[in-house]
Amino acid sequence: MIFESVKSEGLAHISYFVGSDNEAIVIDPRRDCRVYVDIAQREGMKIKTIFETHRNEDYVIGSLELAQLTGAKIYHGPDLAFKYGNTLEHGQEFCFRKLRLTAIHTPGHTDESMSYALADLDAGEQATTVFTGDALFVGDVGRTDLYGPSEATRMAENLYNSIFNKLLPLGDGVILCPAHGAGSVCGGAISEREQSTLGLERILNPVLQKTKEEFIEFKISEHLERPPYFRKMEQYNLEGPPILGHLPNPSPLSPKEFQEQIRLGAVVVDTRTPPAFGGAHIRGSYNIWLNRLPSYMGWVLPYGKPILLMLEDNRNLETAVRYLVRLGYDHILGYLRDGIEVWYKESLPLGCLGLLTAQELKKRLDRGDDLFVLDVREKGKWDDGHIKGALHIYAGHLERRLDEIPEDRPIVVACNTGNHASLVASILRREGYREVYNLLGGVTAWQNAGYDVIK
Amino acid sequence: MIFESVKSEGLAHISYFVGSDNEAIVIDPRRDCRVYVDIAQREGMKIKTIFETHRNEDYVIGSLELAQLTGAKIYHGPDLAFKYGNTLEHGQEFCFRKLRLTAIHTPGHTDESMSYALADLDAGEQATTVFTGDALFVGDVGRTDLYGPSEATRMAENLYNSIFNKLLPLGDGVILCPAHGAGSVCGGAISEREQSTLGLERILNPVLQKTKEEFIEFKISEHLERPPYFRKMEQYNLEGPPILGHLPNPSPLSPKEFQEQIRLGAVVVDTRTPPAFGGAHIRGSYNIWLNRLPSYMGWVLPYGKPILLMLEDNRNLETAVRYLVRLGYDHILGYLRDGIEVWYKESLPLGCLGLLTAQELKKRLDRGDDLFVLDVREKGKWDDGHIKGALHIYAGHLERRLDEIPEDRPIVVACNTGNHASLVASILRREGYREVYNLLGGVTAWQNAGYDVIK
Amino acid sequence: MIFESVKSEGLAHISYFVGSDNEAIVIDPRRDCRVYVDIAQREGMKIKTIFETHRNEDYVIGSLELAQLTGAKIYHGPDLAFKYGNTLEHGQEFCFRKLRLTAIHTPGHTDESMSYALADLDAGEQATTVFTGDALFVGDVGRTDLYGPSEATRMAENLYNSIFNKLLPLGDGVILCPAHGAGSVCGGAISEREQSTLGLERILNPVLQKTKEEFIEFKISEHLERPPYFRKMEQYNLEGPPILGHLPNPSPLSPKEFQEQIRLGAVVVDTRTPPAFGGAHIRGSYNIWLNRLPSYMGWVLPYGKPILLMLEDNRNLETAVRYLVRLGYDHILGYLRDGIEVWYKESLPLGCLGLLTAQELKKRLDRGDDLFVLDVREKGKWDDGHIKGALHIYAGHLERRLDEIPEDRPIVVACNTGNHASLVASILRREGYREVYNLLGGVTAWQNAGYDVIK
Amino acid sequence: MIFESVKSEGLAHISYFVGSDNEAIVIDPRRDCRVYVDIAQREGMKIKTIFETHRNEDYVIGSLELAQLTGAKIYHGPDLAFKYGNTLEHGQEFCFRKLRLTAIHTPGHTDESMSYALADLDAGEQATTVFTGDALFVGDVGRTDLYGPSEATRMAENLYNSIFNKLLPLGDGVILCPAHGAGSVCGGAISEREQSTLGLERILNPVLQKTKEEFIEFKISEHLERPPYFRKMEQYNLEGPPILGHLPNPSPLSPKEFQEQIRLGAVVVDTRTPPAFGGAHIRGSYNIWLNRLPSYMGWVLPYGKPILLMLEDNRNLETAVRYLVRLGYDHILGYLRDGIEVWYKESLPLGCLGLLTAQELKKRLDRGDDLFVLDVREKGKWDDGHIKGALHIYAGHLERRLDEIPEDRPIVVACNTGNHASLVASILRREGYREVYNLLGGVTAWQNAGYDVIK
Repeated sequence: MIFESVKSEGLAHISYFVGSDNEAIVIDPRRDCRVYVDIAQREGMKIKTIFETHRNEDYVIGSLELAQLTGAKIYHGPDLAFKYGNTLEHGQEFCFRKLRLTAIHTPGHTDESMSYALADLDAGEQATTVFTGDALFVGDVGRTDLYGPSEATRMAENLYNSIFNKLLPLGDGVILCPAHGAGSVCGGAISEREQSTLGLERILNPVLQKTKEEFIEFKISEHLERPPYFRKMEQYNLEGPPILGHLPNPSPLSPKEFQEQIRLGAVVVDTRTPPAFGGAHIRGSYNIWLNRLPSYMGWVLPYGKPILLMLEDNRNLETAVRYLVRLGYDHILGYLRDGIEVWYKESLPLGCLGLLTAQELKKRLDRGDDLFVLDVREKGKWDDGHIKGALHIYAGHLERRLDEIPEDRPIVVACNTGNHASLVASILRREGYREVYNLLGGVTAWQNAGYDVIK
Repeated sequence: MIFESVKSEGLAHISYFVGSDNEAIVIDPRRDCRVYVDIAQREGMKIKTIFETHRNEDYVIGSLELAQLTGAKIYHGPDLAFKYGNTLEHGQEFCFRKLRLTAIHTPGHTDESMSYALADLDAGEQATTVFTGDALFVGDVGRTDLYGPSEATRMAENLYNSIFNKLLPLGDGVILCPAHGAGSVCGGAISEREQSTLGLERILNPVLQKTKEEFIEFKISEHLERPPYFRKMEQYNLEGPPILGHLPNPSPLSPKEFQEQIRLGAVVVDTRTPPAFGGAHIRGSYNIWLNRLPSYMGWVLPYGKPILLMLEDNRNLETAVRYLVRLGYDHILGYLRDGIEVWYKESLPLGCLGLLTAQELKKRLDRGDDLFVLDVREKGKWDDGHIKGALHIYAGHLERRLDEIPEDRPIVVACNTGNHASLVASILRREGYREVYNLLGGVTAWQNAGYDVIK
Repeated sequence: MIFESVKSEGLAHISYFVGSDNEAIVIDPRRDCRVYVDIAQREGMKIKTIFETHRNEDYVIGSLELAQLTGAKIYHGPDLAFKYGNTLEHGQEFCFRKLRLTAIHTPGHTDESMSYALADLDAGEQATTVFTGDALFVGDVGRTDLYGPSEATRMAENLYNSIFNKLLPLGDGVILCPAHGAGSVCGGAISEREQSTLGLERILNPVLQKTKEEFIEFKISEHLERPPYFRKMEQYNLEGPPILGHLPNPSPLSPKEFQEQIRLGAVVVDTRTPPAFGGAHIRGSYNIWLNRLPSYMGWVLPYGKPILLMLEDNRNLETAVRYLVRLGYDHILGYLRDGIEVWYKESLPLGCLGLLTAQELKKRLDRGDDLFVLDVREKGKWDDGHIKGALHIYAGHLERRLDEIPEDRPIVVACNTGNHASLVASILRREGYREVYNLLGGVTAWQNAGYDVIK
Repeated sequence: MIFESVKSEGLAHISYFVGSDNEAIVIDPRRDCRVYVDIAQREGMKIKTIFETHRNEDYVIGSLELAQLTGAKIYHGPDLAFKYGNTLEHGQEFCFRKLRLTAIHTPGHTDESMSYALADLDAGEQATTVFTGDALFVGDVGRTDLYGPSEATRMAENLYNSIFNKLLPLGDGVILCPAHGAGSVCGGAISEREQSTLGLERILNPVLQKTKEEFIEFKISEHLERPPYFRKMEQYNLEGPPILGHLPNPSPLSPKEFQEQIRLGAVVVDTRTPPAFGGAHIRGSYNIWLNRLPSYMGWVLPYGKPILLMLEDNRNLETAVRYLVRLGYDHILGYLRDGIEVWYKESLPLGCLGLLTAQELKKRLDRGDDLFVLDVREKGKWDDGHIKGALHIYAGHLERRLDEIPEDRPIVVACNTGNHASLVASILRREGYREVYNLLGGVTAWQNAGYDVIK
């Protein structure tokens, strides 16, 4: 028996490869799915079946892509009119070689959500492992807000029942295999610990310590952001996304070629760090640091325009490409070969962005500088404490609330660390704001410097 | 938190790397220990501490080697006069960053055996994981025969108490991390499933279904082989083995150079498959197929003589070297460059070994050929059914029972598959037996062909 | 400027990647062409153009495959009605960034053969490098027999003129980049030294020491074998071969599945070494040792039948697949998972093949055993000396001269080392010959043992 | 025959591995020398001999390190009292298997400089390849200024004689293998083309077009910088450097640990790009972009102090470490784990550096801002054209000419691209200069913007 979890960094998505003898299955494959074929080849296995836990909203599912490479059959849950694959019923069993997978309908996150219990028939009937999709995570449970406020109570109650009446009864010793780890947009408080069991969650998961009423109350009052790209993902994962065949292969462009593509309408994504972006960048670029690309891009990048990349290092190209296609941004034209250095050697127009430390901001606020502090963190963080006088607009809502931001004052954008703020600042610069600063280290640095926050 | 298990194939040994922030620990490192340093570098961690579960008898522990590379401190259990490292007490706690490791004295396999419970303090006090060394495996428990029959009852009772009174009470949800997986000489029935929990073992592990009396009875009647190299390992792991610095780098030898080293006393280990060895080999070589090297070499290879390798493929050199040094065979002189082909092109002396299929053996026995069938499987297998008229000598005991094997009759060696038999046949050829056959597929093939066995 | 040669082992084919700034070209790409895209990505280059030196007859050209991946434009020489790509004229120049490639028509090997001279315009007009295809090799020149005896003189004279009047005049200092290295079927005496220059060839290449008359005489009397697959390659490379998209992904088969595919007509290629094949193999398999697959398979494998693989090690699968598709064998059904061992454990029918050392053969011949010695080496080797009483049939001509081989006598097949002989022996076994031996080490071993040969 | 060139990026150093059958030699190994052992293992060869072309002054030679790993014997040229290895004479020959290496004394760069001609005895007596060390490069010749002005004429004449009387007579077709490629401090005009021959150099190398008198005149008037670390290298390479055993393994440090090491005297090397450094950095750090580390560090880093690294990406650690040890900086304490972000999140003190585009500088100069422009390029570049009003101090001479730079005016540092200027600016900041700017793109950008320079 081979068991391997495949993590997609950034998305914090986890998929699973399970094999016995020469047969294997994959649960929730990602779109850049060569990885599963490589495992299968290494282990002398053939991927025969793909199981989806639910129609994901945060990434493009790779089932069709993988099916095209391997001929595998695809299965998903009931109650949703998928345009590809096959529908499962609760309780349906799949035996392959010495393993048995049993489908468990666990609605709550979505109606069609399925979990899958795995038994090692060599050892006995007892399930050893359960794949819970977005129902149950390590330290958290799935979000129940996707169908809107009117359905929130129903979804929350469904989730409670799925967890308490269908999953936990499998037994404390059962190993938990969720679809996401820490950092996912699908759960706000997923633990950094990757391994868990139903028994550990029963004891340690704070949400599972609540009564049914508390649980429902907690879930319907929970506030999670919902980036606009979710809609595209839902469509793709219902109808089946375009087949890639292989990863896009963006062209290395000279400064002139790059400039020409910008002129023709391409969008520049600058994946360098905020200090580097602050120092010098191509005007009009979005700054999304490579490590944050999966979390932030779906908020701001349009699906209709070609993408150009500014990289810190050419070796990052493949990572950036993977991140983009996982969210369905397939039209990646090229990248600036040799990076920003060639741009400024050619004396092409550069922008810069002010970078402030907490100490500098404090000094300037104290001496009465007319700074407009814009706090772009999630609401919960804002509520926990913020800089006096700041305005709160969550980063993702910026573009529709731009009119609240004065055009004639210096703007200081603050987030938790300086990454999200750098993206917001880059948007403000695109929108024509002249003097924009990124608070390096954000409110975290402000507090670590010992300065007051208000609630 | 980073958790990574490092499996050493062949030995079926499992070691663990656990890190939090920039600190890491390693549990039961193997001797070719660069792998842990590579993980630490990739994760931005420094290995600060090494924990041993017990003085291993089946491989050379890598603690000193790893300590020399990293400066890490070494700990092991009480009641044994280790000549290096530091001694722990039951209940001793180690906190590093957000994790806590608690030592649990779990004698039974050996007196100094320690388990370690890991808690993720971010989540709570509950242990999430337990490293059980050779106390508890997936599907089996540690052997209790190492101190001899006179101590067997005491050890078995100790092990029962360790498992039932110290480990299982940690909770069903706790993840099990043993020191060995399927194929280890330290447990006869370890499951091929690699992941388990205390709860799953409580339900599925056949040995844990017994009462205390049954458990002790079962353990003292259990028959496990004890290869002679165990003594060397015990000495190394008590006193500290030689430091390697880096893996040995055997020389690629020409046929003439290879022949000269044989003349000077080096031992040839032919790591090709039994059919290839049967077809043609250098006279006097031991045939131990690469995949079986870790299991078989400790029975036959002397520690005092230099080793020469015959490889199927030069790419196997590193694997063979790792296997050898894990058992303390450090003096690896060289390998025959370009393999057996150059040997026969030079017209140097070749040996061969008869290969029989089950059908051929049946036909020859039926027609009354005077064949001496030698069954070299473990006693349990023999008891389950064997070819009529065969003599049973376990492969590992061959050299001391050679006088039971007639020199003037054709010998057919049978094991389970043909690998162990090929080694035995190669030993018989070294000892001067003229006509020796390997039964391809062994008694398994015999039975699959539908021929009778007796009990 | 980036210059990288890509060698395809076995075929001894060499292709070239040349880049300047962000543009690159490839000369004579192979069919498994991802390697060029990887180099381009690593170097930040885009492959814009593909140049073919000629319609190859010994492998499937990868131009269309690579063009499909990259959008590159394809060029080849005149005087042949290629069904894809663009036709060049002698003297045509291509400048890209700081480099210039000049097409030089160098017929002789074939009529459309092109060489390409490369100049580094930063340094000057002088050509620095010349890509000579199959016109000029290190230590040898291209074969001129492909158009048959009636054209041989014309081709030889053309080649002489191409080399002496077009290539050598480029200057002694020019670096030589041929399409093949030692071991290719396109030249019998190519040197093992990989690097050379026109000046070194002028002095060291034995063929270039001849007068024009001697040169022509030498070429028309040269005897080189022409495997039947050449015809398929010529057709593919004229019309454009099928596009693969990605490498075939053969299935890991159980013994029962493997057996079923054999029953349905698949051909088994056993890629293990001759001693392993001799020891035990599936009846009816062809034995072509992995390292010899590129040289031998085109002689015996039919294009219409699916292929099954027997591997020594699963890690060899990718190599075997690459070798097969380079010659257009794309329908590779699967391989026996876990190799021959599972076959004999299942007691499925096995064949074996006698293996003889030179000493044993000598002894048996001396004592008058009725052995039929079949020498399958190339004619040149046979002429240099062979075992008395042997019959000579070149391995590649075996199937059409089978009636010369007696069915009622033991056959001993002899080649240079035992590899080719093992393939021939496996064919004889397929044809129903009962007692067939492979002379290990072949006539080389015979001579190294000090035994006489006759001429 | 195996021939492989091993390039050490940054240093632009090239070493060579040459093997025949199971024996190999290495010419001018680098200090991180595992790479040669890996090639040897892959090819089934044993490194028996190491040849040095001369006592290098620009990097630590790896001969002793490699000898310790392999037992190889070391040879170098005469006329210098090396404290290790063996001394060669002009004309001495080494045959190994089918190859022959002949030592050719080629003084000029240094007195003990040796070249080595390689012949492939299978092909003939003619040398095929020559290893020229620092005597002859592609497009340039070795520097002759190392013994000071009083010896310059003698050295230049020696070099002329070595090249014209000893190297070129080997023949136009001989392949050239120099010790350096483009970017080395050992030659100012080495070509980017990596492959050449004696014949190509005879025609294309501009220095070889001169008469003897012109040649000597050119060499004695040539102005090349000589970084202070050369002295350390010369000492190391005369006496033998410390043996590393394995690469240093710097610790991942938390901000507090990093800060503590700075307090104790460690030097911070910030390997991020100039825009990132400009945006935010730890005060007191040197900014040497990773790609320029090999060229710049030897000018400024002291040998006595421990080094701390600030990395853009943890994956760059190994590269940085290799670069440092190649120049003998072995005491690398650690790196800031997770980079600058954690530093500013902790609100620890940050510095920044002004970044100016050419346009901004022009505007400010035009409007009469009191800017002090410091041009730190090599003298030749300065002479070719510089910004009016600038002062020229070569970057490497900065520390001894600091008193020429006014403390009370804003300083704009200009180089060719902004890399060297960022290092100089970081030094000025260390020295207490308050307002320091890096001209992004340097004088190149200035000129590309169309602004005037004066000569």
